[in-house]
Amino acid sequence: MGILVVGSVAFDSVKTPFGKQEEIMGGSAIYFSVAASYFAQVSMVAVVGEDFPEENVSFLRNKGVDTSGLLRQAGKTFRWRGEYGFDLNTAKTLETQLNVFAEFSPKILSPHRSLEYVFLGNIDPDLQRTVLEQMNRPRLVACDTMNYWIESKRPSLLRTLSMVDILMINDAEARQLACEPNLIKAAQQILSWGPKTVVIKRGEYGVLMFGCDSVFGAPAFPMAEVADPTGAGDSFAGGFMGFLAASGKLDDADMRKAAIFGSVMASFNISEFGPRGIADLTYPEIEARYREFHKLIYFSDI
Amino acid sequence: MGILVVGSVAFDSVKTPFGKQEEIMGGSAIYFSVAASYFAQVSMVAVVGEDFPEENVSFLRNKGVDTSGLLRQAGKTFRWRGEYGFDLNTAKTLETQLNVFAEFSPKILSPHRSLEYVFLGNIDPDLQRTVLEQMNRPRLVACDTMNYWIESKRPSLLRTLSMVDILMINDAEARQLACEPNLIKAAQQILSWGPKTVVIKRGEYGVLMFGCDSVFGAPAFPMAEVADPTGAGDSFAGGFMGFLAASGKLDDADMRKAAIFGSVMASFNISEFGPRGIADLTYPEIEARYREFHKLIYFSDI
Repeated sequence: MGILVVGSVAFDSVKTPFGKQEEIMGGSAIYFSVAASYFAQVSMVAVVGEDFPEENVSFLRNKGVDTSGLLRQAGKTFRWRGEYGFDLNTAKTLETQLNVFAEFSPKILSPHRSLEYVFLGNIDPDLQRTVLEQMNRPRLVACDTMNYWIESKRPSLLRTLSMVDILMINDAEARQLACEPNLIKAAQQILSWGPKTVVIKRGEYGVLMFGCDSVFGAPAFPMAEVADPTGAGDSFAGGFMGFLAASGKLDDADMRKAAIFGSVMASFNISEFGPRGIADLTYPEIEARYREFHKLIYFSDI
Repeated sequence: MGILVVGSVAFDSVKTPFGKQEEIMGGSAIYFSVAASYFAQVSMVAVVGEDFPEENVSFLRNKGVDTSGLLRQAGKTFRWRGEYGFDLNTAKTLETQLNVFAEFSPKILSPHRSLEYVFLGNIDPDLQRTVLEQMNRPRLVACDTMNYWIESKRPSLLRTLSMVDILMINDAEARQLACEPNLIKAAQQILSWGPKTVVIKRGEYGVLMFGCDSVFGAPAFPMAEVADPTGAGDSFAGGFMGFLAASGKLDDADMRKAAIFGSVMASFNISEFGPRGIADLTYPEIEARYREFHKLIYFSDI
């Protein structure tokens, strides 16, 4: 079953303690699409400028991504420059050039309106709702957000939350959104606003997933080599939604598997700069890491 | 099989965002002994001053703790004053009065020298070795340490590490000890110095356990009510060593169970100030939380 992702496409310039790279392809729609492409058909809705190379589009098409919703507009592609210290969980933004992304107004093409799985990347919550209003009753909607929208567009964000099934958010943002330092209470507060599931991403510390009557927790896959955490959250979302779209089920057992497949994709992603860590995988490699993950976490009941 | 613990007994004055308490009984030997007492016979070696109330000793005896190695000396008991912000993983020490603990030189009584399980709480690594030199070939030795000893007594600490089976340490200290920001590489470095297992405690983020050819990871048990993280690491160690002493086995499956029993005891401990959270448990309550933990973490293999 098909997935629609709406998000950003960017050129990222990133410095970490392990190196730096200029103008690598990034953005939530890119990381999500590449990660999800190993599991299911993904259609991407995003905007790029005239400077976006055709070979990047070819790369996405070669991954099986449907780029018919990728709009090319006069002007330059979105640019982000950021830096990480040894605390790889927190990026310091040095520069943002919105460029064509400033006027992004997602238009969903008719063949995409019936897609059953929707991921709303971290964009203005007004735009997130615009997407949902164009869709024909999707089966599962997940969204991401960030501190900027929590601070500047809280009422709009709450309206969006009332329309989504899953919120994926990092731990600091969950605390900020719920005005509650305890993560369990924060998750319960967010669940009361509409989402049936809250997935709290904790970077190198893993993930907590809260449903109405279920909690799931997993550490991140320990990695000896980490190059660049950029895109880890969107790679996680891609693996998560990709697995659910492929399985066709939404029960607790599948949600847990989805969180592990998400963590697997994030672990591949951070091992190289940009989306390179997830660009050339095979499905058996992904399954093999899932099994390693199971070995990492397994302990017997009493 | 019996456990020997050597560590501190203190009066702690603690302030957290959730309240404050003055002069509550604490110290590594207390938290460890109370937590381990639910699993196995524990003999405590520590020193207190004349001001240590007899009722505290009775409390320990009622938990089944052998206090024959608890030395009472002229002077005052060790005092610690500390404070936590919302980041409950890091204590800020406001005041330390070593008092009788300054001259602590652990003497192991003859009946304790054959105990098979030994936990060396966070004390001077010279003293940790003094203990081991008095023991009659214990089956399993675990130790804790802290940044103070890593900085001021590194060569001595490395000698101690060459004599222990398990190092339990928090993540910042593991990085500092190994001079390596990546935890996997830090653990591998520490393993090369002697311990067969390195248990890295990450507070609210759980635990990573590294053996020669096995890695185990678990999140912490999510708690809606946290009062005071003091003693969480020693409660963890008590549950860990207690379970191993009770099971009598040391294979990978039992080590993993031990890490979960340790996490269970830590989760009870942090729910109240001081050791109150672990003072009045029953073994079925402990087992019930273990099973909840298993439900939290369980996902199926593919």
